[in-house]
Amino acid sequence: MNAPLRIGLAGLGTVGSALAGLIQRHGNELAIRTGRPIAISGIAARDRAKTRPVDLSAARWFDDPVALARDPGNDVFVELIGGAEGPANESVRAAIDAGKHVVTANKALLSRHGVALARAAEGKGVSLNFEAAVAGGIPVIKTLREALAGNTINRVYGILNGTCNYILTRMQEEDLSFAECLAAAQKLGYAEADPTFDVEGFDAAHKLSLLTAIAFGTEVDADAIYVEGISRITPADFEAADELGYRIKLLGVASRTESGIEQRVHPTMVPKSSAIARIDGVTNAVAVDADFAGQLVLSGAGAGGAATASSVMSDIADIARGDRVGTFGRPASHLEPYRQAEIRAHEGGYYIRLAVYDRPGAFAAIARRMADKAISLESIVQRRRAPRANAPGHPVMAEPQPVIMITYETTETAIREALEAIKADGHVAGDPQMIRIEQFG
Amino acid sequence: MNAPLRIGLAGLGTVGSALAGLIQRHGNELAIRTGRPIAISGIAARDRAKTRPVDLSAARWFDDPVALARDPGNDVFVELIGGAEGPANESVRAAIDAGKHVVTANKALLSRHGVALARAAEGKGVSLNFEAAVAGGIPVIKTLREALAGNTINRVYGILNGTCNYILTRMQEEDLSFAECLAAAQKLGYAEADPTFDVEGFDAAHKLSLLTAIAFGTEVDADAIYVEGISRITPADFEAADELGYRIKLLGVASRTESGIEQRVHPTMVPKSSAIARIDGVTNAVAVDADFAGQLVLSGAGAGGAATASSVMSDIADIARGDRVGTFGRPASHLEPYRQAEIRAHEGGYYIRLAVYDRPGAFAAIARRMADKAISLESIVQRRRAPRANAPGHPVMAEPQPVIMITYETTETAIREALEAIKADGHVAGDPQMIRIEQFG
Repeated sequence: MNAPLRIGLAGLGTVGSALAGLIQRHGNELAIRTGRPIAISGIAARDRAKTRPVDLSAARWFDDPVALARDPGNDVFVELIGGAEGPANESVRAAIDAGKHVVTANKALLSRHGVALARAAEGKGVSLNFEAAVAGGIPVIKTLREALAGNTINRVYGILNGTCNYILTRMQEEDLSFAECLAAAQKLGYAEADPTFDVEGFDAAHKLSLLTAIAFGTEVDADAIYVEGISRITPADFEAADELGYRIKLLGVASRTESGIEQRVHPTMVPKSSAIARIDGVTNAVAVDADFAGQLVLSGAGAGGAATASSVMSDIADIARGDRVGTFGRPASHLEPYRQAEIRAHEGGYYIRLAVYDRPGAFAAIARRMADKAISLESIVQRRRAPRANAPGHPVMAEPQPVIMITYETTETAIREALEAIKADGHVAGDPQMIRIEQFG
Repeated sequence: MNAPLRIGLAGLGTVGSALAGLIQRHGNELAIRTGRPIAISGIAARDRAKTRPVDLSAARWFDDPVALARDPGNDVFVELIGGAEGPANESVRAAIDAGKHVVTANKALLSRHGVALARAAEGKGVSLNFEAAVAGGIPVIKTLREALAGNTINRVYGILNGTCNYILTRMQEEDLSFAECLAAAQKLGYAEADPTFDVEGFDAAHKLSLLTAIAFGTEVDADAIYVEGISRITPADFEAADELGYRIKLLGVASRTESGIEQRVHPTMVPKSSAIARIDGVTNAVAVDADFAGQLVLSGAGAGGAATASSVMSDIADIARGDRVGTFGRPASHLEPYRQAEIRAHEGGYYIRLAVYDRPGAFAAIARRMADKAISLESIVQRRRAPRANAPGHPVMAEPQPVIMITYETTETAIREALEAIKADGHVAGDPQMIRIEQFG
């Protein structure tokens, strides 16, 4: 048997504890499968005194993760601290500088510093693996970096945030508001006390930026992503979507266009019959359109300590066997500068929901604004609401009526300008709702 | 740049031609991604004179694949000949004996000789990779061997034969007979002139036997698989399944039980809401239940030259980078002997369809036979068929009536004995139809 692979583990939260438990439970099997024992030799975490479900007494304790990263007593540094800067960034750089392989689940770190870290790792001849940073237990990084090595990838998209998908699934199934479902998600531990990072789409954007880099061979550019969250989606949108044959999902989409790479994260109406429409709850899914492999769809647990630890272990096992793949599937020097696509037409058009004041000429004005931008309408639904019985003192005539419009293909610019003009005309209450439609297979 | 990886390619059918096209089209990218150029240096195929869509004039031609396998002018032998014995087997052995890496898409070969070939490859320190042998372009072998290295796998199941899934999908959607859909599949090139191997489940069984070996760390034993094909499924079964909330799929299922490994391939009723029910047409899907990763589902193109070539290229790219994984995810010496599970209860019970003669006491006799074996019935549907108007001379009273029964959980032995006894009683016409029900998530 070969010498053990010694792990320096920084971070003992949900994922770190699950990883320690995995190594304890499957240690014998791991040694058989990878050809060498895998042992946790050093640990850095915040609270040494905390009671933990696994026995870590054989590992040396470090108060400082950077010291652990530099310590010669380990071969692989596993970073499960989190955050784009501070201890996570410093310790990963220290580990690479010390010539160690690094495994991380840190999407924020890689989204910000991934290319620089990949260059540093290549300079030292070590691996920088991050399967757990995207879509939890789903092997999407391995699939893109290795399984699809012989393909040109044209599009990668998916449900990359379980919190949002849980909230959207409950809104759709139970006709509840965003706020109600967010509260339920927080109660179940699926959402943070401050949910902004998840529900406004930033978490999905970080993950998408990493998928984009591998899929298209470009430098990571999370700032180039158009990001829109789910907090403005209402039960009325779900009702309309259902009637029109759609589901609403927060999707991250990256695609190759003639003018460059398009990256966006936003609520999307997808046909009920599509594979992606059927991914419910905290499950994640990633679909890849590749020229030889065709369309691949991978779905599974997008978060949780056990599933994420499984992906961390996959990266460690590759290192234990001596398998080396470039961080983004190719040498960092071969990553092309990110070239952002021009705004372009969307397949399938747009869903628009307006609250229109019931006045003569209001609808004609709206239709004219759309026509001015050469936007054709596939369907218009205006359902007259019965005046509310118990709204005393509220002038019934003034209550705006919901109008739903589905456009044919048009450009993002055209739709935005038309909606601006419609709003300025003063016939609608509040902001128009706009959701992009995608016709996925 | 490192020295080129020289490929000896045996077989220029659909997959071989697609692979040559892939290397031609993506050669520059492949060199960047894997760190070395990949070149086809030798070819063996049946007909040298045949016009082919790719230029292979730079490669040396061999009439005998064994000679190509032994030729020092290539580093990797790619076997795309097919068949468990003969040239495929001989050339793969010759290549391994000559110290070459082997990539094959040959499920029949590995299903029969996989363990012996894996031992030989390990003895020579070379890779024997076979991503393309199971589920075409879906990276299920890589996922099981590498991504799930840190997991105990409890069950692996899937739609492993596109021909069957195409036929079943059309039967369900268009209310057609098996024979009609088979003819359509043959016309489209989805089924062979002699379709037995596909429609009777043997192809799926070969693939399942390979998934089983990796998932459970056992020797391959395709003969231990219970195999039942789809040729006996009728439109009446689809109609009943639809009413009861099920779809009918040909599934391969391998699971870990207390008494050993259970492997079976048979038509299965799965809830309409399950992920596997929604895989239509020639698409394949594989689901894995793993202790840390949870449930993973991978779906994509299960066949076709391009998708299969993508998987062959994935195996070649691993070899080019120097990544080495044991053929079945661990050293062949660590594969345990296959231990077959005892027949056990199935979750979800059974669907039974009988053609019952309309006689006093017939139904009571059937019910008693089920009760004798302690089989409880969840539902019974008897729909009296209107006597056929245009069946002159046919005694209407004798026409058997369809009776559908859904049982609660019971054992395979109990259900078989009950159906034997029911048949012997003489109240039913023809053979009872029996389809297993599985409650997948």
